[in-house]
Parts: sequence; C-alpha cells; structure tokens
Amino acid sequence: MDGKIARKAWLRALADELDGGLATPMDVARAETEAFFGAGKVRFFKDKALGEGYEISREGDIFTVTGGETGVLYGAYALLFALVCGRDPVCAAAQPFYPLRMLDCWDNMDGSVERGYAGRSLWFEGGEFCYDEKRIRFLGRLLASAGINVLVLNNVNVHYPAQELIRAKIDEVSRFAALLRPFGVKIMLSVDFAMPLMDGLNTADPLDERVAQWWHARARAVYAAVPDLAGFLVKADSEHRPGPNEYGRTHAEGANMLARALTPFGGKLVWRAFVYNCAQDWRDTHTDRARAAYDLYMPQDGRFDDNVILQIKHGPFDFQVREPLSPLLMGLQHTNTALEVQLAQEYTGQQIDLYAMPPLWREIFDDMDARRVQAFAAVGNLGRDENWAGHPFAMLNLYAFGRFGWQPAAAPADVIRGWVKLTYAMDDAPCKTLCELLLRSRAVYEKYTATLGTCWMVTPNSHYGPNPWGYEFQAWGTYNRADRNAVGVDRTARGTGFTTQYPAPMRALYEDAARCPDVLKLFFHRLPYDYVMADGRTLIQRIYDDHFEGCEEAEKMQAALATLPLAEPDRSEAMQRMTLQIKNAREWRDVTNTFFHRLSGVDDARGRKIFE
Amino acid sequence: MDGKIARKAWLRALADELDGGLATPMDVARAETEAFFGAGKVRFFKDKALGEGYEISREGDIFTVTGGETGVLYGAYALLFALVCGRDPVCAAAQPFYPLRMLDCWDNMDGSVERGYAGRSLWFEGGEFCYDEKRIRFLGRLLASAGINVLVLNNVNVHYPAQELIRAKIDEVSRFAALLRPFGVKIMLSVDFAMPLMDGLNTADPLDERVAQWWHARARAVYAAVPDLAGFLVKADSEHRPGPNEYGRTHAEGANMLARALTPFGGKLVWRAFVYNCAQDWRDTHTDRARAAYDLYMPQDGRFDDNVILQIKHGPFDFQVREPLSPLLMGLQHTNTALEVQLAQEYTGQQIDLYAMPPLWREIFDDMDARRVQAFAAVGNLGRDENWAGHPFAMLNLYAFGRFGWQPAAAPADVIRGWVKLTYAMDDAPCKTLCELLLRSRAVYEKYTATLGTCWMVTPNSHYGPNPWGYEFQAWGTYNRADRNAVGVDRTARGTGFTTQYPAPMRALYEDAARCPDVLKLFFHRLPYDYVMADGRTLIQRIYDDHFEGCEEAEKMQAALATLPLAEPDRSEAMQRMTLQIKNAREWRDVTNTFFHRLSGVDDARGRKIFE
Repeated sequence: MDGKIARKAWLRALADELDGGLATPMDVARAETEAFFGAGKVRFFKDKALGEGYEISREGDIFTVTGGETGVLYGAYALLFALVCGRDPVCAAAQPFYPLRMLDCWDNMDGSVERGYAGRSLWFEGGEFCYDEKRIRFLGRLLASAGINVLVLNNVNVHYPAQELIRAKIDEVSRFAALLRPFGVKIMLSVDFAMPLMDGLNTADPLDERVAQWWHARARAVYAAVPDLAGFLVKADSEHRPGPNEYGRTHAEGANMLARALTPFGGKLVWRAFVYNCAQDWRDTHTDRARAAYDLYMPQDGRFDDNVILQIKHGPFDFQVREPLSPLLMGLQHTNTALEVQLAQEYTGQQIDLYAMPPLWREIFDDMDARRVQAFAAVGNLGRDENWAGHPFAMLNLYAFGRFGWQPAAAPADVIRGWVKLTYAMDDAPCKTLCELLLRSRAVYEKYTATLGTCWMVTPNSHYGPNPWGYEFQAWGTYNRADRNAVGVDRTARGTGFTTQYPAPMRALYEDAARCPDVLKLFFHRLPYDYVMADGRTLIQRIYDDHFEGCEEAEKMQAALATLPLAEPDRSEAMQRMTLQIKNAREWRDVTNTFFHRLSGVDDARGRKIFE
Repeated sequence: MDGKIARKAWLRALADELDGGLATPMDVARAETEAFFGAGKVRFFKDKALGEGYEISREGDIFTVTGGETGVLYGAYALLFALVCGRDPVCAAAQPFYPLRMLDCWDNMDGSVERGYAGRSLWFEGGEFCYDEKRIRFLGRLLASAGINVLVLNNVNVHYPAQELIRAKIDEVSRFAALLRPFGVKIMLSVDFAMPLMDGLNTADPLDERVAQWWHARARAVYAAVPDLAGFLVKADSEHRPGPNEYGRTHAEGANMLARALTPFGGKLVWRAFVYNCAQDWRDTHTDRARAAYDLYMPQDGRFDDNVILQIKHGPFDFQVREPLSPLLMGLQHTNTALEVQLAQEYTGQQIDLYAMPPLWREIFDDMDARRVQAFAAVGNLGRDENWAGHPFAMLNLYAFGRFGWQPAAAPADVIRGWVKLTYAMDDAPCKTLCELLLRSRAVYEKYTATLGTCWMVTPNSHYGPNPWGYEFQAWGTYNRADRNAVGVDRTARGTGFTTQYPAPMRALYEDAARCPDVLKLFFHRLPYDYVMADGRTLIQRIYDDHFEGCEEAEKMQAALATLPLAEPDRSEAMQRMTLQIKNAREWRDVTNTFFHRLSGVDDARGRKIFE
C-alpha cells in the first residue's frame, strides 16, 4: 500500500488483508467471518429476494446469516461489528433505508482531489489510473462494512482527461469496477455535459437528435464494459460548467436526454441541483443565492424521468457549518431526489479540526421526513494518506454516513460509540471521553466559526480560517452586510422572501425574529447589535460570548484528547492536528470579535481581551 | 515569432528584422542605420574610452557617431530616434547615469511568469529553454534602444529546475547570452542560496569553507561558459526563501561569500533588500513591516563587499500605488545600492488598466538625489503576447525605464512624448491627447485605488481589484486598522516610529499630520473620519470625493482614448482593456465607499450613490 500498511480504521478487529481472488459478496462474507472466528461458525444462506437486506439468527455458538446477493455481506459485517462492540447480533430483518448510498469522490485524473484533505487520489495520478490493488480492496471492505454501495469515481467538475473515462479509458474503469464488485460497490461516473463537442458534434443541445444518439452510443459502450455501472452524475450550468441552458433547454430536458441513454441498462442519472448565479453583484440586494435552487427546480417538478435523481445539498448554500434545510428538499413532490452532504471538511475544519457530522445529520432528519428523498449522497473525504482521511477521527464521518444511509433515524451517540469501539480497543472511561468529545465537536466548532447562523466569514478560496469580509464584495452571493449598526440579511417576506419557500410551520418559525432559533437568527434576519436575545443578552454580547466560550471549549477538548490512551500514530496525529485547531480557534475568536468591535464600538461586558 | 509577427512597439520606424549574423554592437548599429538611411549616411568611430557613451556630430547630411563598444549602438539609436521624433540628434557627449540598468524577469522554467500579465515566458517552457531566436533578437533591439544593458533571466524566487541554469543548463545559458550580446545586453542569473544542499553538501552556511568553495567552483564553470555574465541576483531570507539567517549569519556574510566567488570574473552580486517578517500577527501593533528593511540593513552598512549591490524597492512595502520613498535608500552611506521599481503592474492595474510610471519615478528622483544609488533595476513586464506587454501602452514603461536609467532627471512628459512618437505615426493633436492621457493615468488610478496613501486594500493573492480587509487579518503586516471612528496606522514617533528612519527634513514633514502631504496622510497617520483636511473637507468626504472623481476621470480617459486614430490591433486592445478598467474603477469606487460608509455611517455630502 504505497510501500506502507494503510491504517485499518474501523476494521481493527478484522483480517489484515483478504485474498485477492474473492469474486462475490458471499466469498467476502465467508472470508471475513472465517478470519474472525475460524471456519464453521457462520452459515450463510442466500435469499435473492432480500436484496441488500439480511437476517441473523443463532443456534448455540453457530450464527446463520441469510441475505440477498450483497445482503449476506452486510449481514456478515453486522454480525462481526455487533460482537466487537459487545452487542447481540441477532436480528430479524435489516434493510437499508436508501437503496442508493453514494460516495461522490472529487478525484481528478491528474491525481489531485478537489477539496481533498487527505493527500492525492487513491486511484488517479498523472492523467491515468494509478492504484494499489490491495488498498482498493481494503477500501472495498471499508465501504461495504459501512454499508455504502456506490462510488463516484471522478470529480463532478470534469476536467480533461476525465472525459476519457467513458471513451478511451472504459476498459480501465471496467478493471477498477471489478476490484470493488465483490464488496457490493458499484461505480458511477461524472460526465461532462458538453462532451459531444469533443467528438466532432457542433452542439451538445439535449434536444438535438445527434446529441441524444451520441449519448446512447456512449452508454452502450460503457455498459458493455461495466454492465453494473450505477449511472452518471452531472453538474451542469453551475459554476461555469456547461449545461442545457446554453441551448435554451431546461434542466429536465437535459437530464432526461441523458437518463434515456441509461434506461436500457438500468442506470441512474444523478443531476446536481447546485445551480445559482455565481456572477452576482454585491450591490444587488434583491437577488438571494439561498433562493436559487428552489426558484429553478420547483417549476420543473414532475418533468424529470423516473431514473433521474436530483441531488440536493442539505442547505441552500454550500455545506456551511450552519444552514437551514434546503426548502427544495421539502418542496418537490414528483421528482426523485438525493440528499447530499459533504464528508470532505471544506468549510468545517479540513480534517484538521474535529467535526463529527452525525449531529448535523440528526438535525436534518429531524427537520425532514427521511422519505422525502430517495437516495443519500456524500462528497468523500478520502485520499492516499496512510490514515485514509488525514485525521484518524475523520473516518468516523465516512462510517457514520453509511450508517445513516441505512437508518436515518440513528442516534448520533450510538453511531459514534459504535465507530469508537470498532476503531479503538479502549476501556469504558476513555471510550466515553472520546465519544463525548466527538459528539460535541460540531457544536464547539460552530460556536466560534458560525454563531447565530453567520456563514461565509471564511478565507476565500481556501475556506480555512476566518475572513469576515473576504467574500463580502465578491460575485458569489455570500454577504453578511455588517455595518456599524447591524448585521445579517433579511430573508423574510419583507426582505428577499427566502422564508416563503418553506412549508407553513417552518416558514412561520423562520419569519419571526423572536421565534427563529438562535443558531439561524442572523441567517434569516438583519438585526442591530443591541437586539435583545431571548436570554436577555444583546446580539453583540452573544457574538462575543460565543467566540470566547467556543475557544475555551476547544481548549477543553484538547485537554480531554490528551488523556486518551490512543496508540501511535493516531495519538500524535490527533494531538498535532488539535494544536492547529486551537490556533485556528483563537484566530476565529480574535478576528471575529475584533471585526464586530471595530464596527459596533461596543466593548465586551465582561472585559475580556478584544484586539484593536 | 510563434507563427506571428510580434508587434514592433517603439521600433515602428526601424527595420522589420535584422540579419541574424550580426556579431557586435557596431554591426547592429550599422545595420539599423543602413536600413533606415540606406548605406553611407552614418560613419561610426569606436573610442573604447567612451564605454557606453557616445557623441553625434553632423557634416552636411552625413552623421558621425563616436562611441565605446556599446556606445556606438546607443548612439545609433539616439540618432535614429531623434530623427523619428523630429529632434536635432547632434550631441556632444552622452553617458548613461547608471552603469547597471537591469531588467529583472520573473520567468520560471515551467514557462509561467510570476506576476506576468503578458502571457508565458519568452524563453522558458516545460522546464527547458524554448524560444524563437528572431523574437529574442528583436527583444535585444528593444532593450538596447531603450538603453537597458542587463537581463536577469529567471525569477528571484528560484523554483526547480532553475537551479540547473548554473549547472546542467550552463551551455544553454551561454547560447542565449550570445543572442543578446550584439545588443550590449548581458545576462544575470537569479540563484538559490541553498543550492549547495542540492549538490551533496549538508549545509549552505556562508562561513563554511566547503560552501564557499562550492560557489567558487560554480562561478568558475558559469564564467567559462558566459565570460561576460553580469553576475548573480539573490533573494534570501525572505518570503520563505533560504538565506544566511538560517545559519545564524548576517546578510553581509551571506552576500560577501557569494560576491567573492564572482570577484575573479568581475561579476556583481545583487542582493535584494526585500526582507521582512512575513508571518506577522495582526494583533501585534508594534511591529511595522515598513520599518523592516531599514532595521535590518542599517546596522550592516559598510560591511558589504565592493561588488555587492543591495537592491532596494522604492518604497518600504512592495510596489504599492503610493508609498513614501524607502528610508533605507537615504540611510545607507557605505553600501552600493540599486533602486528597484516594478514594470510588471502587479498592484497597478496588471497591464489592463493604464498606469504610466514616469511620474512615479520623477517623484522618487525629486525626493532622492539620484547619486544615492549606483544602479537601477526594474521587474520586467514582458511575455509571449504578440504585443509584448499585454497592453500596447504598457511598453511605455519598459522604454521609459531605460530612459530614466540614462537620465534620472528626465521630465515624464518628454519621455512619454518620445515613446508616443516612436510608437505611433500620429498628428500633433491626437499625439497630445495620448500623451496627456498617459501622463495623467497614474494620478487617476491612485485616486480611486489608494487615496491618501491607503495601500493594500486589494484582493489578496491576485492583487487586482478592491478588497478593503482582504489583507487585514493576514500575516503579511499590511493593515489599515479602520474602525467606526478612524483609519490608518500611526507611524510617527508616537506610533511605530517608522518616521524616525527618515533624515531630518522628511522626518519632520511626515511626522506632522497637518504638514504630511495628502497623498501620504493615511500612510503615516491614524486619523478620525471627521479630521479636517487643509482644503476644509473632512477626511471621509475626501475619501468619497476621490473615489467618485477618480472613476469619472477614468471614464474621461475612455472617451479620450476613443478619439485616437490608433491602427488595429492596438486600438481594439486598448479599448477592450479600457472597458475592463472602467469596470474595475467602478468596483473600486463602490466597494471602498461602501466599506467606509458602513464603518463611519457618514453620508456623502453631495448625495451621490453609496451602496449599502
């Protein structure tokens, strides 16, 4: 594995390595359990009707796993993980909640990973496929054991030569797909909407018959090489990517054309709803980027083919630390949708700072009936780093994503405890400390980086560290409009009207500054610094308090981390990155407090240090 | 020339191309004049004692040019240019004021040019030399005709494989040097202070005898290949470049060690004084980057060898639109120095916006006796663009740099008029319009981007366009410290003490807010928005006025430009870029005014539009 043994992450208690010759999920299931128990302790029965589902029963010390084609493998991992965690593995019937549990990897063929914080790509380098088969098989085990069943191989921003994945490099995709097939993981490919132009056509108009024919021919060729390809993922008409709007066509027309090319082969066409005006003028106070996806897609509800899935980010912006739920997720009634989250910690600490995501996902599924969407997708957080995700604890998010894909009603504390027990052999007390630290990490990070729903006060481009007005006069539609008296954007019916996109109870909640939850107060409202919060503090004092407290809490996390009996190298990696997090937290505290102090002129009521 | 004829710039009236076989400046002088007059109209006499100098006399219609080795060529161009411009060419004795007139090119061997706004490198690509010999010869004519005699071939930030220029690629440097030798242009190379480490030594300590020997051996090898090499240029201990400080040695010790390696061959060691703490903490209000160069180098005055030249930027920061003169230029008494300016319009419009530099240089030489420095250096503005500098008018700055190197007392209006007449065959009226437009361009640009000496309110990294707090909380030491009441940094004796680095009269001038020139008011002083300026306006009103007026004046420049009878493609290029400049000017106006309005809460007294 690049000359080193990659870390085993949450497979600590399982085999170091599996035989390269295993051909099916059943083979893998047997190999994993035999390595764990020795032979003869687990019996497997295949029941195709169960699909990805499984049952586990027990007679004496013999377990029986009954499952579908991949269900037997999921059952095997469920059995093993229950035993490692000390839980009873017997269960009557387990089925994943979402049939599609997709990991969208933003890997470029040059070997870079867009917003990758764990090193270079695990499978691309220098414009070519380039990977260690053993490591890819280990990846297959990680994905299967978390319950993830689709891997999108390449960045949604399709940079040359990634177009060749569906042309000259099809056979290499086929070889790669074969490596992951025994783990029940299917490949999906991101495609370039304009690609027919590379192939001699003078248009990519989705209503041009030659274009449709071109995509049909491509799909036939791709499926001949990879018969179980999950489908195509497309980012169109967004952030300078080509799309149907260039030809005066709707997104439904664009997506359906591609989807029909996939229909004969059972493929899905996943269409990202991340479309907005990325050349906005900060002077324009009417246009609101938060409204963009809803405004664009609601009129097209019901016009998408059955095998189209509209992939919608959880918030209306872009994976900020705090956003309300995207109203589009609640608005669409006749369109298949996927909920998209981001494991890559672009705005959430870049796999340096601790940020465990289960609490965020719990909030999402508390706000929204999980059945509102039909699939669950996450931007990946993996790379060639020995520990896979840059920070050993960042692997929690990958594991937990799979768990929420099976069970959106999961309790964050349970999922985190499961991951800790699988990953580290620890006594109860430190295990509890680590679980609490992880469970709390997002709230702490939010407190000093995004209190009251202030988002985008981040360093442009890199998205690490504070820069309160770094994006303020830019074209991205991300403004806080702070001045000497007030801060925030009025997104109510009196302002940009974004609140009107929500169904009635949420709309009423967000519309009223007094009722709007504190964590979203400044997302929806423009408020003066002397606005009095429910707890009696002024807005400005609350901003100061949260920054001082958040930073102190980060320091407490550091102290707690130091007490943990982690083995090396995890201990050093975690401690070193925590040192950086503390530096980052102090920067956030001081820059943000100074920013608001310079504007407001209000001193901290408790006399703490705010720099000039 | 890359398949196209490169534009002739200010050589409009001279030959399209010279014979590739010309071996000496005398050959070139004859070829240029014969192409202009036909044969027999100019007699040349070589008088070695004249060096770069020349005399021009006339008998009837026969001119006689007497000059040194390169003096004959400078004389030939002086003759031709005088005739093209309609001036009397006869002159008794012309000598360049500065013996070293260096063009520092920031070309990387990968073909990129750091802060290059005119395309890829003219001589590097893909880690190799890569050039069109005809175009390099034309470049030689441009340099010689402007009076520039040294070309630094590679970026001061020496990125691999540019280290090989003094090792594996010496012979290629030699071939390149031979191309420019007939034009009196010598090559200089930027070197990497840490290079001995690449060659098996475990140190680059300048006091380590092995290191000194290593450099001696390198110098011997380099001078064997390029006997007239001008020397080495070094950026050390600055912005993460290696240097003597790493070994606890002074810059004098580092520079002298390198200089001694060059001494046997008559080479110069040019050492950049651009050294400061680039990991500053914005919370620290005592450290002042403006002080850095003086604090570092003054204690070392007199310790540098005779063939060391300390290259000092004109201002204490970094080529901002408005800075006071660097006090180091006036402080050093026993050290050879070069004045460094930047033709590459990094902070000054990036060869999109008009910014003619002669007025800036006039101010510098008005503030400082030209004899304070012994050499004149400029960061280059050239690239592979057909018009050489991205904007056809940007070539003025290259031409004018050479002129000021010969005559620091030059009048900007004369130099500009000379360039216009050489470049464009125009009637008097449009010629006057263009000259005025260029002469005024810097003042207009300053008005809306850097009024009152506010600098660094620019987009980080790209350095194009406004971002008032883009650098405010960064590590670069570039703060305006604006708040709701006041703006600026107190650099007086009561503040950071930067003013105390100036000799008495300037010190007194800058120390007193009332006397300090308006254009530097906020560079030296922190002033409240209601501070009353000499003309009775408040500071905040002056800020607004300058931004509105500067933008209006840019629009007038656009109107004036449209009237000019420029031939294509110059006209289109100039007009298209002017459209971008107007957009940029409006952005500067609106962002800056809004920034100060949000902070101060003060409305424009004349009711003009300031956005929220």
